[in-house]
Amino acid sequence: MALLNPNYKDLKQSYLFSQIAEKVRNFSAENPEAKIIRLGIGDVTEPLPASCREAFKLAVDEMGVASTFKGYGPEQGYAFLREAIAKNDYQSLGLEISADEIFVSDGSKCDSGNFQELFSLDTKVAIPDPVYPVYLDSNIMAGRAGKENAGHFSNITYLDSTSDNNFCPSIPSTHADLIYLCSPNNPTGATFSKAQLAEWVAYAKANNSIIMFDAAYFAFISEPDVPRSIYEIPCAREVAVEFRSFSKTAGFTGTRCAFTVVPKELYLMDTQGEKFSLHQLWMRRQSTKFNGVSYPVQKAAEAVYSEQGKLEVAALIKHYMENAKILRDLFTSKGYTCSGGVNAPYVWVKTGKDSWQFFDQILKEAQVVATPGVGFGPCGEGHIRFSSFNSRENILEAVSRLTKVL
Amino acid sequence: MALLNPNYKDLKQSYLFSQIAEKVRNFSAENPEAKIIRLGIGDVTEPLPASCREAFKLAVDEMGVASTFKGYGPEQGYAFLREAIAKNDYQSLGLEISADEIFVSDGSKCDSGNFQELFSLDTKVAIPDPVYPVYLDSNIMAGRAGKENAGHFSNITYLDSTSDNNFCPSIPSTHADLIYLCSPNNPTGATFSKAQLAEWVAYAKANNSIIMFDAAYFAFISEPDVPRSIYEIPCAREVAVEFRSFSKTAGFTGTRCAFTVVPKELYLMDTQGEKFSLHQLWMRRQSTKFNGVSYPVQKAAEAVYSEQGKLEVAALIKHYMENAKILRDLFTSKGYTCSGGVNAPYVWVKTGKDSWQFFDQILKEAQVVATPGVGFGPCGEGHIRFSSFNSRENILEAVSRLTKVL
Repeated sequence: MALLNPNYKDLKQSYLFSQIAEKVRNFSAENPEAKIIRLGIGDVTEPLPASCREAFKLAVDEMGVASTFKGYGPEQGYAFLREAIAKNDYQSLGLEISADEIFVSDGSKCDSGNFQELFSLDTKVAIPDPVYPVYLDSNIMAGRAGKENAGHFSNITYLDSTSDNNFCPSIPSTHADLIYLCSPNNPTGATFSKAQLAEWVAYAKANNSIIMFDAAYFAFISEPDVPRSIYEIPCAREVAVEFRSFSKTAGFTGTRCAFTVVPKELYLMDTQGEKFSLHQLWMRRQSTKFNGVSYPVQKAAEAVYSEQGKLEVAALIKHYMENAKILRDLFTSKGYTCSGGVNAPYVWVKTGKDSWQFFDQILKEAQVVATPGVGFGPCGEGHIRFSSFNSRENILEAVSRLTKVL
Repeated sequence: MALLNPNYKDLKQSYLFSQIAEKVRNFSAENPEAKIIRLGIGDVTEPLPASCREAFKLAVDEMGVASTFKGYGPEQGYAFLREAIAKNDYQSLGLEISADEIFVSDGSKCDSGNFQELFSLDTKVAIPDPVYPVYLDSNIMAGRAGKENAGHFSNITYLDSTSDNNFCPSIPSTHADLIYLCSPNNPTGATFSKAQLAEWVAYAKANNSIIMFDAAYFAFISEPDVPRSIYEIPCAREVAVEFRSFSKTAGFTGTRCAFTVVPKELYLMDTQGEKFSLHQLWMRRQSTKFNGVSYPVQKAAEAVYSEQGKLEVAALIKHYMENAKILRDLFTSKGYTCSGGVNAPYVWVKTGKDSWQFFDQILKEAQVVATPGVGFGPCGEGHIRFSSFNSRENILEAVSRLTKVL
């Protein structure tokens, strides 16, 4: 008899954003006239940059001629894109990352969800609370989480991120093998300082741990001293993998392109102490279970690094960060405590009540959708996340409605 | 200390096609003047159909306007594509598959590699020998395969496919929970008859097993009575998942789009006998670890089902199958025994010697690359696979060179 992977029974019934979507669908069905403004899921709304679209379409044209047609590409991505990423995102900033340490993928969700496969099942995992749900869910599915009690799984080391530590968790007193960090953090918008990240790197070196550093929102950092990449910290190449994405930076959520940096110094050990290159293991995983990103999509991503592309991306980020300021100013003026919105496109608001209750209230009274903080982990209870990814018009309308009901 | 998933140590050092690529690179480096003809990896060479390119570019244009811009799509694919697939590939043939049973993905490699995650680790797996390596490799990585001995893993039930059974394995005498079948088979080109598939469906029903039916090459079937889909067999909805892809059918290997059919009757059980919908489990897996296929790529795939698209796809398949006949005729005329090339774009040739030795010989003497049969499993030893995916010019040149050296 075909048996279920029993770990799936430990998952919450639906992925957070599916749950929100269902609530919104139900509300819409009951209130068909309501004009709902969606500041829930962090999904971009502004057009794909013109330089990306041009490159995209030229690549489609190439697919129409036998001499320039592209079949299977390298599973890890085309050299043109890996080189553009290494040069523009790292080398030009003095960070030593080579093109063959870049693995292009169709999304950071896939990469951050799949990477745990390389680790043994008894790996001790540390995960921030609150944080993007995929780190925990993918480890639950694999069977590393243990049993749940009051929203916490017994085998996970939770890195509590609260107003007490400005939502930047300190290193744990116990040992962890695999550590997820997200900076700028989704959902709190908090960022680690260089000194804090250096502590994490030192901890990982001392514990032979691997850090999964999710930098999906690095492009939204506005303060000068905040690290954009973990590789700004000395020795980070020996302990950290970094996830980045074109999704939020360049409006690629519907176009799908991201990448993961796996430095060649990283290794895992077997129980006899033999070392195995993490770079080679990820290459093996990707070449077995993945077939590379669509060629025209990779050409569109490459255009992000053209002169014109850089200007267009900067304008997109400016737009969303002005939205963030408008949202943040609303809540501050209303006397709410909030974080984020300065180095991240999310504003994290202390609700003063149960976070789903606040979600329901603003959906009902203002037809505005946000994301309940508790959906990101128990420490998120009492908070809600507002996304600044929207048109200016919608942000202003949301602020106008919220001003009346809060 | 971060420990390796120990199952990765049981994998062969590199994925078959990476190994071939390396041999070809080395040969090229030593013989820079050689004009190599690649009939190894099954990768299409002819342009993407014009109707697909047009739809592709129109969708890119949509991404440039806020009102038609697409961010995150449904993880399981847009309704327009799921409906086109259900209608054209199933319902119009009288097969009862609904649009919401279709899960669109970026490749059958991903789907057939990832689907095993839903099953418990002690699932008994049956895999044809020889066959596409991903079924075995993904189960090795998960830890279901056991230990290797002479190319066979101790916990896998191998479904031997040899000239004795016309490369169509019969049902095993022992129990299997999860059964991979591939028809038309990669690499042998063999296809199950309806009677044979009905036996498999009956076996799966009797054993509460799930069949993973890989129909990536269904479009190449030319004989009228050969089943294109496992759902042509009564009750197959109760036992089978089906993988299909636009890769070979419509030249999408570099564009990336495929789909998996998961009927709602399917379920897995927990150890207490409770049933869990496989459809819901796959939805949960995909919504947690996958973010859907690029919108313009889905629009390109939809165009495969337009009137013009159907004509263009038929022309592509005719081209490749004429190539297959040319290859098959060569080997037959030289006295080789071969299968495939009638309902599949692969010609499977009995080499009369070690399959890597034959590979090396034709690479050296004719600068033609093929795929050693043993790379697909021990039963593939003594055979080699020729792909018909190439231009007519290259096929004729390869035949001319091989005629001289065989």
